[in-house]
Amino acid sequence: MTPVTPERAAELLLRDDAATKRLGITLLDVGPGRARMSMLVGEDMANGHRTAHGGLLAAFADSAFAVACNSHGEVTVAAGFSIEFVEPAHAGDELVAEAVEVVRRGRSGVYDVTIRRGETVVATFRGRSRSLGRPISAE
Amino acid sequence: MTPVTPERAAELLLRDDAATKRLGITLLDVGPGRARMSMLVGEDMANGHRTAHGGLLAAFADSAFAVACNSHGEVTVAAGFSIEFVEPAHAGDELVAEAVEVVRRGRSGVYDVTIRRGETVVATFRGRSRSLGRPISAE
Amino acid sequence: MTPVTPERAAELLLRDDAATKRLGITLLDVGPGRARMSMLVGEDMANGHRTAHGGLLAAFADSAFAVACNSHGEVTVAAGFSIEFVEPAHAGDELVAEAVEVVRRGRSGVYDVTIRRGETVVATFRGRSRSLGRPISAE
Amino acid sequence: MTPVTPERAAELLLRDDAATKRLGITLLDVGPGRARMSMLVGEDMANGHRTAHGGLLAAFADSAFAVACNSHGEVTVAAGFSIEFVEPAHAGDELVAEAVEVVRRGRSGVYDVTIRRGETVVATFRGRSRSLGRPISAE
Repeated sequence: MTPVTPERAAELLLRDDAATKRLGITLLDVGPGRARMSMLVGEDMANGHRTAHGGLLAAFADSAFAVACNSHGEVTVAAGFSIEFVEPAHAGDELVAEAVEVVRRGRSGVYDVTIRRGETVVATFRGRSRSLGRPISAE
Repeated sequence: MTPVTPERAAELLLRDDAATKRLGITLLDVGPGRARMSMLVGEDMANGHRTAHGGLLAAFADSAFAVACNSHGEVTVAAGFSIEFVEPAHAGDELVAEAVEVVRRGRSGVYDVTIRRGETVVATFRGRSRSLGRPISAE
Repeated sequence: MTPVTPERAAELLLRDDAATKRLGITLLDVGPGRARMSMLVGEDMANGHRTAHGGLLAAFADSAFAVACNSHGEVTVAAGFSIEFVEPAHAGDELVAEAVEVVRRGRSGVYDVTIRRGETVVATFRGRSRSLGRPISAE
Repeated sequence: MTPVTPERAAELLLRDDAATKRLGITLLDVGPGRARMSMLVGEDMANGHRTAHGGLLAAFADSAFAVACNSHGEVTVAAGFSIEFVEPAHAGDELVAEAVEVVRRGRSGVYDVTIRRGETVVATFRGRSRSLGRPISAE
């Protein structure tokens, strides 16, 4: 069986991803080992300091990471990640998350996601993935 | 000016925290350098693999971290965090996040958050905080 | 075959560990999922800022992590780790690293190591382990 | 006072860095926000599994990180780092660590270091730096 294309893998992954939809995250672009997604920071994404909740920024990056690490057509999950907050984001900001593959070996992978508002880096994220070794399918 | 109590700091922090409310996160307990919160995993928190979206688990842990690191009465923000996913969570799971202070020195702090479903560890989180050096106040 | 004891696992692991010997690291105590080791910061451990080289502090913590995660009698390696530097250390400091198991599930584990000088926390370390699924043996 | 050049900053930093010397680490190249260094894995760098001790690989990456983050001519220290081990290294391996700046804002910075043996990625490292706000000088 030939693996699905990155586009088809993203389509199948995002079809059932209620969390990503709920955050209004949109896929801009996907390719082998990479993905680019956008999110508008809503009023309901603010934390107690009235900036974008760091955990929701992490969720945004995590969605881009998921699309990138599943792009090879194998069911792949996050083992963990780390994030550094560089610059606060605010309601009304249009953010872009760009995920790129750093390395993949056996069933493990490392992916970097950068969240930007225009040219400004808002956060840097590094995800560790683990393939389950079975193909992504329409089922 | 005496600093606010942990309870009052949490109240002021959560009052304006739309993101935490939106996720249905509830404060169970707060004390100096610690917090315990609960979250029910909703159907709309699933990712494309039909388990709880890791980014939303991170957002849950991040909220508990925020309450714990602001409990000393100084405005304190997240510099970053890391998370490891140990066991998947599913819609209907009632999760508890427990945040404890590992160390605080000057304006920096390290906090551990453990997310559990009953006795089972779902995820381990470590947050790095930075105090802005000004008191939390009602306005 | 019964697994080796934590003491025997540590003995077998450290017997061939040239790096740990070279740093003068000594085992103080070992038990199931935990270890305590000491290291004297030598003049030759300074970095360009004349404090203990952070990478060597990480190596010290990593050795304690290795003993703790191999204590169950299965050959276990580090998948990765993170470290936060809290307080600088200097030549002449006697440091203690205490490793404890946070969680173990299947072949994966998470361990925390705290490096202290007396009561002062010098660094906090979190390691992620992976068991290779075969017993530690004398040969 | 004009800041020192990256070359001069590296020279001043490494001059007193006993730990880096002790590991036989050599500077190959330095520029603004970047550095490349090499290390030969010695017999005395093995751990109990007879592969290169992960902590010493981290120390190698940390040295490249230090040169990169001090290249702007301000005294800059590590706040912390994370590392993922991708492929084991062995005695006799000639490794290269390449450090690049991901982002710098105010006194904080994020740097990525990749350790390679030839084309093979051995480890990926991400460091968080903090400038002390004073120039590097010959004093």
